[in-house]
Amino acid sequence: MISHPAFNVEPWVVRECQLHLEVLAQAESVFALSNGHIGLRGNLDEGEPHGLPGTYLNSVYELRPLPYAEGGYGYPESGQTVINVTNGKLIRLLVDDEPFDVRYGTLRSHERVLDLRAGILTRTAEWVSPAGCAVRVTSTRLVSFTQRAVAAIWYEVEPVDGSARVVVQSELVANESLPDLGRDPRTTAALEAPLVMEENVVDSTAAAMVHRTRRSGLRVAAAMDHEVHAPGDTQISVSGVGDVARLTVAGLLHAGRPLRLVKFLAYGWSSQRSRPALHDQVVAAVAAARMRGWDGLVADQRDFLEQFWAGADVEVDGDAEVQQAVRFGMFHVLQAGARAEQRPIPAKGLTGPGYDGHVFWDTESFVLPTLTYTYPQAAADVLRWRQSTLPIAREHAVRLGLDGACFAWRTIAGEECSGYWPAGTAAFHINADIADAALRYVDATDDRGFERETALPLLVATARLWRSLGHHDLDGRFRIDGVTGPDEYSALADNNVYTNLMAARNMAAAAELVGQYADDAEALEVSPEEAASWRDAAAAIVIPYDHRLKVHPQAEAFTDHARWDFEHTKPEQYPLLLNFPYFDLYRKQVVKQADLVLALHLRGEAFTAEEKARNFAYYEPLTVRDSSLSASTQAVIAAEVGQLELAHDYLGEAALMDLGDLEHNTRDGLHIASLAGAWTALVAGLGGMRAGTTGAISFAPRLPSGISRLSFRLFYRSRRIAVSITPDAATYRLIDGLALPSAHHGVSIVIRDEPSTYPIPGIAPLPRPRQPPGREPVSRHVRGSED
Amino acid sequence: MISHPAFNVEPWVVRECQLHLEVLAQAESVFALSNGHIGLRGNLDEGEPHGLPGTYLNSVYELRPLPYAEGGYGYPESGQTVINVTNGKLIRLLVDDEPFDVRYGTLRSHERVLDLRAGILTRTAEWVSPAGCAVRVTSTRLVSFTQRAVAAIWYEVEPVDGSARVVVQSELVANESLPDLGRDPRTTAALEAPLVMEENVVDSTAAAMVHRTRRSGLRVAAAMDHEVHAPGDTQISVSGVGDVARLTVAGLLHAGRPLRLVKFLAYGWSSQRSRPALHDQVVAAVAAARMRGWDGLVADQRDFLEQFWAGADVEVDGDAEVQQAVRFGMFHVLQAGARAEQRPIPAKGLTGPGYDGHVFWDTESFVLPTLTYTYPQAAADVLRWRQSTLPIAREHAVRLGLDGACFAWRTIAGEECSGYWPAGTAAFHINADIADAALRYVDATDDRGFERETALPLLVATARLWRSLGHHDLDGRFRIDGVTGPDEYSALADNNVYTNLMAARNMAAAAELVGQYADDAEALEVSPEEAASWRDAAAAIVIPYDHRLKVHPQAEAFTDHARWDFEHTKPEQYPLLLNFPYFDLYRKQVVKQADLVLALHLRGEAFTAEEKARNFAYYEPLTVRDSSLSASTQAVIAAEVGQLELAHDYLGEAALMDLGDLEHNTRDGLHIASLAGAWTALVAGLGGMRAGTTGAISFAPRLPSGISRLSFRLFYRSRRIAVSITPDAATYRLIDGLALPSAHHGVSIVIRDEPSTYPIPGIAPLPRPRQPPGREPVSRHVRGSED
Repeated sequence: MISHPAFNVEPWVVRECQLHLEVLAQAESVFALSNGHIGLRGNLDEGEPHGLPGTYLNSVYELRPLPYAEGGYGYPESGQTVINVTNGKLIRLLVDDEPFDVRYGTLRSHERVLDLRAGILTRTAEWVSPAGCAVRVTSTRLVSFTQRAVAAIWYEVEPVDGSARVVVQSELVANESLPDLGRDPRTTAALEAPLVMEENVVDSTAAAMVHRTRRSGLRVAAAMDHEVHAPGDTQISVSGVGDVARLTVAGLLHAGRPLRLVKFLAYGWSSQRSRPALHDQVVAAVAAARMRGWDGLVADQRDFLEQFWAGADVEVDGDAEVQQAVRFGMFHVLQAGARAEQRPIPAKGLTGPGYDGHVFWDTESFVLPTLTYTYPQAAADVLRWRQSTLPIAREHAVRLGLDGACFAWRTIAGEECSGYWPAGTAAFHINADIADAALRYVDATDDRGFERETALPLLVATARLWRSLGHHDLDGRFRIDGVTGPDEYSALADNNVYTNLMAARNMAAAAELVGQYADDAEALEVSPEEAASWRDAAAAIVIPYDHRLKVHPQAEAFTDHARWDFEHTKPEQYPLLLNFPYFDLYRKQVVKQADLVLALHLRGEAFTAEEKARNFAYYEPLTVRDSSLSASTQAVIAAEVGQLELAHDYLGEAALMDLGDLEHNTRDGLHIASLAGAWTALVAGLGGMRAGTTGAISFAPRLPSGISRLSFRLFYRSRRIAVSITPDAATYRLIDGLALPSAHHGVSIVIRDEPSTYPIPGIAPLPRPRQPPGREPVSRHVRGSED
Repeated sequence: MISHPAFNVEPWVVRECQLHLEVLAQAESVFALSNGHIGLRGNLDEGEPHGLPGTYLNSVYELRPLPYAEGGYGYPESGQTVINVTNGKLIRLLVDDEPFDVRYGTLRSHERVLDLRAGILTRTAEWVSPAGCAVRVTSTRLVSFTQRAVAAIWYEVEPVDGSARVVVQSELVANESLPDLGRDPRTTAALEAPLVMEENVVDSTAAAMVHRTRRSGLRVAAAMDHEVHAPGDTQISVSGVGDVARLTVAGLLHAGRPLRLVKFLAYGWSSQRSRPALHDQVVAAVAAARMRGWDGLVADQRDFLEQFWAGADVEVDGDAEVQQAVRFGMFHVLQAGARAEQRPIPAKGLTGPGYDGHVFWDTESFVLPTLTYTYPQAAADVLRWRQSTLPIAREHAVRLGLDGACFAWRTIAGEECSGYWPAGTAAFHINADIADAALRYVDATDDRGFERETALPLLVATARLWRSLGHHDLDGRFRIDGVTGPDEYSALADNNVYTNLMAARNMAAAAELVGQYADDAEALEVSPEEAASWRDAAAAIVIPYDHRLKVHPQAEAFTDHARWDFEHTKPEQYPLLLNFPYFDLYRKQVVKQADLVLALHLRGEAFTAEEKARNFAYYEPLTVRDSSLSASTQAVIAAEVGQLELAHDYLGEAALMDLGDLEHNTRDGLHIASLAGAWTALVAGLGGMRAGTTGAISFAPRLPSGISRLSFRLFYRSRRIAVSITPDAATYRLIDGLALPSAHHGVSIVIRDEPSTYPIPGIAPLPRPRQPPGREPVSRHVRGSED
């Protein structure tokens, strides 16, 4: 599956044994370090060669004009795009007048290791300059989980034998030139050199720079300081000119006596604070990092991760690739969310500029379910960020002629940035997805403060939206017409089943919450009549059903449409959206990503087991998975309907999305939702875990032949639970907290301190459904057995 | 109705008695002269003040980039935009060092008269310069119907009393600066100074200029020559520098002894011919015009129009405004089409830059039905132009994954220029509209050469398109999903009734034609199997019907959608598309323009009389007429279902669209389709004329109370017919040709040389349907009675 020899398969590290320039950009994403606040792509210390240089701060963006060939009322005029901020990871090296650049001379060895337990990226290189001088360069990099504003780099260089005249330049550089992204020229213009210098000051071994963006009105500060451990006679100087601040260390080095540098970096940004305030903030953060010191930061990092893994680790025996990939995924999910702190988790985290750095429904529907059970405070923080955008979402609703709040389909700071409304604003389900994430978090944590302060306002605002978006028809049924569901190969359909089911739950839950918090509801001006109208609409929601085929159409009339001509679609014509017009995709039965099947997962109680099996079998041959938001859901439902080998295959696809670069765009950043989905595929899929709004957590585990044991841990209502599954039995155990009622394959159990083991009932194998020709997931059966 | 005092109501002229600068741009459109090849806006001779200077040549355009905030496969990258070519109507005047400019000094009188029988625009002005010198300026302008490349201006100036030193400058000016059109800056850049000078030569009293466009690769030539009749001592000089060529006549004038100038203008353009060839072409055209002379051109013009009116005039007794407006409309329809000659008729003709100068379905569905019965050769020529774009339409179909040909929704030269596909490419009905126009022309003319050479290839190509666009569903019915019908407030719906009925006729007629022209069909590679598949699809076409409401939904599920909240929509919120998002419009029952009601007209045989009445009554309260392509169709069906007063009101709206500036955008050019629709409202509406594909022409006349007599003439199968209608009876008469079987109110009659009169059966008045509040058409009842 990991087709490139660059990466090794090991349980707790991602190791690149050689440098392959053709996957340099992919590796930059894979080796990105982040804490949710700062993100550093895995660029080489010396800056070049690079795939895409990248340093990101959560919510630092620039505005760019959104042009339209034909405009329309309410179209957003400008979009928010993540920008590459001041690069502080740059450490250039000159060896006997020759710049260290792996494209020249001879690279004897080059290894990079991302340690998922230590939270550090280590690089070791031995390089012979064109003039024949050999040096060893070692660097270790971290973005601190414990000091949110801080990153640090430990850097060492020494001659392999003999001596060498060495100059190390450690820099802060703003407005790096980026490779051409093939954009609209006006966009490129807006994003070229987005930062305007306000300050560049140096002092001894330190420097600080403050910039502001031209249009979005944000101020960004970066600071660095250094500890230099230099043998013998070394000169140190520091300078700051224009967009560059530089510490220069020059010396004559001898084999065995390395030059060592620790670089402490800090970032800060604000839309309000002054230049001096921001300057002081980052200088103080650097001082705090120096005080803790390199070893302290490394120790804190390991402690933090140890705690995380104690609650979140998953063990997968029998499939070493998935074992590594799921840990890699969980590490990046944590990196994306740990310190986001009331800021969004973008689709790519802070690992690359893909999708303009926007956050979508991916976060609430794929990332938060994983965080809710493994690092719940991060889930709450994202939802508090959504809540902070309620005023913008209310304005958006007004513009659309709707009540309540309508959250942006894609955004950084809350404003709608979609330039194509049929696949943007029309995808109203994001509002129910946010409500669903809030309900799931409350169910999993019993966090009543959050329920009252955050869930209630979110649910009321979205219930109002749904109530005004739908209407009762002549027969009294509640319809939601002309909206776009999760499947982006359909648009503007009536009564999308997923949307309607999620909207119904949103309205029903809002009505219930309003009953629980009467005073708060009154403050939100919710009358009993209004709550009743939500309950009524939820109860009368239209769920179309095709009686001829005995399946649920994804939306009304979907099953009447022509089937896509899969047989004559060539493999190189995927993803379809790059090779066929939307008009053609929208009007045919072809599914980009799980839509009805996602409803089977998230609103499972609305379907019978037989309906689930029939629906899954119907949609499998139509689903092309041109989105990374599909395989994990298909894994979950495949497992539920007994297609365990297929579930394993989809699990593999979700988990290996980026290590395998399955969509050929990992260069632009990681698919955080797919990585989070791999956990869901294991826990909700093979583990059969269901929770959320049903009032309890239950399991229905079953393993495919390629996995001999699956263990996972999760948080639920102030408990930590450990589940261990073998082909024949499952063992449940409380790690801490009170005994918890649960269910195993539909039988009530109680999970206690003492492990209890229950047999797994057998099932009759069903025929495996087909996928569109050429779109079958890679089989893990053989691979699984090999390990 | 004509609220502005600027225009008088007279039967054969449009007279502006005073100059009102606030309606200057509207008047420039109203007074535009054109022959379908050249179009001159009614700009003042002296160039300023202007609303919008405009000189257009049919199919001369520049390319401009079409930008997208989010791109998609197959989106057009550049659009075609009509450009303002070399202005040859400019004649500036200097009176005692003071430029003649109506904004300064005193305008004692100013009158402009468009004579609809003479085809000339006359202007008379008496002006006193700020220095107190009074002059009388008279000019007459024509664009020749008989010499396609030629326009001419007769210009005279004299002092009212005493004497004046006068300089007249007659010019050719390219790249005039235009008022800011508030466009995308990149578009503005592309269209600013679109012409690159290749040649500017002068000789004696003549000049010629050749330019080329930067991107579209067109070469444009303009030439002028003059006859100068100057009293006494006059100096004449000519110069050509840069983008200006100028004849200057300077002299001292005395009262009663005017300076007179005849300016002959010629235009030519080509995508292929060389600069010298084009130069010679326009110089030769000017020579031909000089040879014929001013009086000859004027006489030819009147002869041409006399012939036209002899076959096309409509007399409306009792409503003088409509009488004038319908003649004004027919004049402009003729101007738009007379000499287009295998070039398109744009939505605005050549009267302004609105809609980028594009041609839409307006032409085939609204303009050609009128031309077919009044000036049929122009209808044939437009369809031959469509035929000439078949190779482009075939490529378009391939790009969309379809068979046959898909004509552009909006274009100048054939390429799709729509930048918003849900209201562009998805409006596939244009293909059936073209087929329908071809069928109607053949039915009306019996032109078998056209049928074989043009109608057959058009019908085969479009039938193939429909066959591949639709599919047979599980029940064997033929569905056409995900397309946009005429109503632009809905999009991407399944089984739009209008589209399906028109597609069915298209396919059935293609199958029939293929049988008639077996050899040609074979050359087009049509097999009997293919033709059978068209017949089969046509017979099985889905026509949705709402059994609860007993009406046809415009498209599947339309009647399930929420009704637009008309009651809370304020008058100033129309047109809705400028004040509400598409998403909201598309998902509700609100109709921009006749859609199902257009099907009632063009496929009337597919509905019972009761269905027509019920459908009309259902759609009236939903139809807001935010398009000028609605009132005429509503007039036709209102008349058919017996709503005669309402039909009269809609007729008035269609006819007065531009004289009344009802949509507040006449400044950008005239609504040619609405003007043509006024004829249809009279002839097919009040006259009840039906023809087309039914094999015969029939009438079912009935007059509203405000019209005491209606007479019209039309061509049908080598005959000219005259119909005269009074409230009680209708008289039919052949003007020339053989006796013609027809029908009067369902009773077979034969129209012969001798007039025969038939009584009009009475009808019981029905309750008048309501329109959305504030969107009722202006009542003509009182106005009609007043006259």
